[in-house]
Amino acid sequence: MTVLRDYYTVKLHDTDSAGILFFANQFKIAHDIYELFLKRIGFGLAERFAGRDFFLPIVHAEADFSQPLTVGDTIEIALSVAEIGRSSFVLEYELTNLDGISVGAARTVHVTTDPATRKKIDLPEGFRKKLEEAKKGSI
Amino acid sequence: MTVLRDYYTVKLHDTDSAGILFFANQFKIAHDIYELFLKRIGFGLAERFAGRDFFLPIVHAEADFSQPLTVGDTIEIALSVAEIGRSSFVLEYELTNLDGISVGAARTVHVTTDPATRKKIDLPEGFRKKLEEAKKGSI
Amino acid sequence: MTVLRDYYTVKLHDTDSAGILFFANQFKIAHDIYELFLKRIGFGLAERFAGRDFFLPIVHAEADFSQPLTVGDTIEIALSVAEIGRSSFVLEYELTNLDGISVGAARTVHVTTDPATRKKIDLPEGFRKKLEEAKKGSI
Amino acid sequence: MTVLRDYYTVKLHDTDSAGILFFANQFKIAHDIYELFLKRIGFGLAERFAGRDFFLPIVHAEADFSQPLTVGDTIEIALSVAEIGRSSFVLEYELTNLDGISVGAARTVHVTTDPATRKKIDLPEGFRKKLEEAKKGSI
Repeated sequence: MTVLRDYYTVKLHDTDSAGILFFANQFKIAHDIYELFLKRIGFGLAERFAGRDFFLPIVHAEADFSQPLTVGDTIEIALSVAEIGRSSFVLEYELTNLDGISVGAARTVHVTTDPATRKKIDLPEGFRKKLEEAKKGSI
Repeated sequence: MTVLRDYYTVKLHDTDSAGILFFANQFKIAHDIYELFLKRIGFGLAERFAGRDFFLPIVHAEADFSQPLTVGDTIEIALSVAEIGRSSFVLEYELTNLDGISVGAARTVHVTTDPATRKKIDLPEGFRKKLEEAKKGSI
Repeated sequence: MTVLRDYYTVKLHDTDSAGILFFANQFKIAHDIYELFLKRIGFGLAERFAGRDFFLPIVHAEADFSQPLTVGDTIEIALSVAEIGRSSFVLEYELTNLDGISVGAARTVHVTTDPATRKKIDLPEGFRKKLEEAKKGSI
Repeated sequence: MTVLRDYYTVKLHDTDSAGILFFANQFKIAHDIYELFLKRIGFGLAERFAGRDFFLPIVHAEADFSQPLTVGDTIEIALSVAEIGRSSFVLEYELTNLDGISVGAARTVHVTTDPATRKKIDLPEGFRKKLEEAKKGSI
């Protein structure tokens, strides 16, 4: 269930000589809405780095590229929380153009770690609660 | 004279291990508002690449970095047209934080070229007219 | 079966404020060796864009991130051709540190397209032949 | 006087839809050889971030773009130490193609700062000494 939507316009620096979005940059676009999501649920990255209470590294990422995107194209990105584990969670991203046609998708698997040791830790309780609400579509 | 303002929030992928905006990415942020500017004056990059009537490569760029910017920082970027030559123009960018403090600046020098030969050509008349209006602050 | 190995040293601009490689940049590193591979088999990207006979867009990409990589880390990347279809092929990338420990992996699925229509076409015969040799480990 | 030379091959992700190197990425390429230079003089970034004794932020950067660079182009980059101040230094970068033709240049102005306060500090003595030797062309 989608919990957050945002728009993104493809920039020149996102594209390459083939005239389309360079595939790796779709992951950047997905991460942008993830950063916005974290901020909205009260766990923004700025606070993560300042407080150093827990980090959220990505251990797996994947994406589909259904339609070529070119400079100036505006797309809608929808984020949903797909799964919540003991020390991990999965986010999904759907990218559609302004005609509502799917142009791509992405999925990122995150774990929670101790910033000092970089070892996995359980999802902090307050953060887990927010993820669970988000999974149901509320933020 | 400022002709266009926009906001930008620093993303994780803009920063580096020193915890601040990687300097080259300030040029990307400047280019983003330039792309918006081109679109607003009716000469968007998508049309440039489709029509292949003229290109606008950057031949010189420079920037000052006055304050470290960190992930989540929102800044205002103001674009102005500083100079218009026969086959070139200069844009300036002022970056301020939300307290109105200058955090950086940039300047890009563009020439107009023939996409096929990549040789310099005079500024097309319609484009020059738009730049001249923009130089006075209207868009 | 590995067909090509290369080394890469993590640059500051690959990392982010968490002090590690930004995940999307692992895809860039994988793509770098893919570009080298194309060149070695006589189908370099420069020729693709000049000749415009066929393009090789990525339709799916995925990666695992096993160990945090930090600025200055040198890794070995090994490329193998995993699958060859009628109009597609799959490449795999293994990333190991200099102690031989796996630090990550990636996989990209490519299709061959007509540059003008961006529609799928069969793998050109000469290219398919090179991929088949590469799948067996020779280049 | 050149103190370090390196080669770089333009990658697909360095280019944009205009078919050439995206200007901001020339700064990344310049920074790559700067990182190599720091390592060679015994002050690698990895040690900077681990030891947190001093940082070297860039306060000004500029570049000229003389010739369009396209994917697969190999260039030579030459680094020299142009100026050494009390708490700052200036590096220059010359980019030439394999025919020895200048294709671009860059210049970065760095200051030394205290990582904790981000305030300017004098160049640490050992570092200054290495810069002075490098200015004369020896490393």
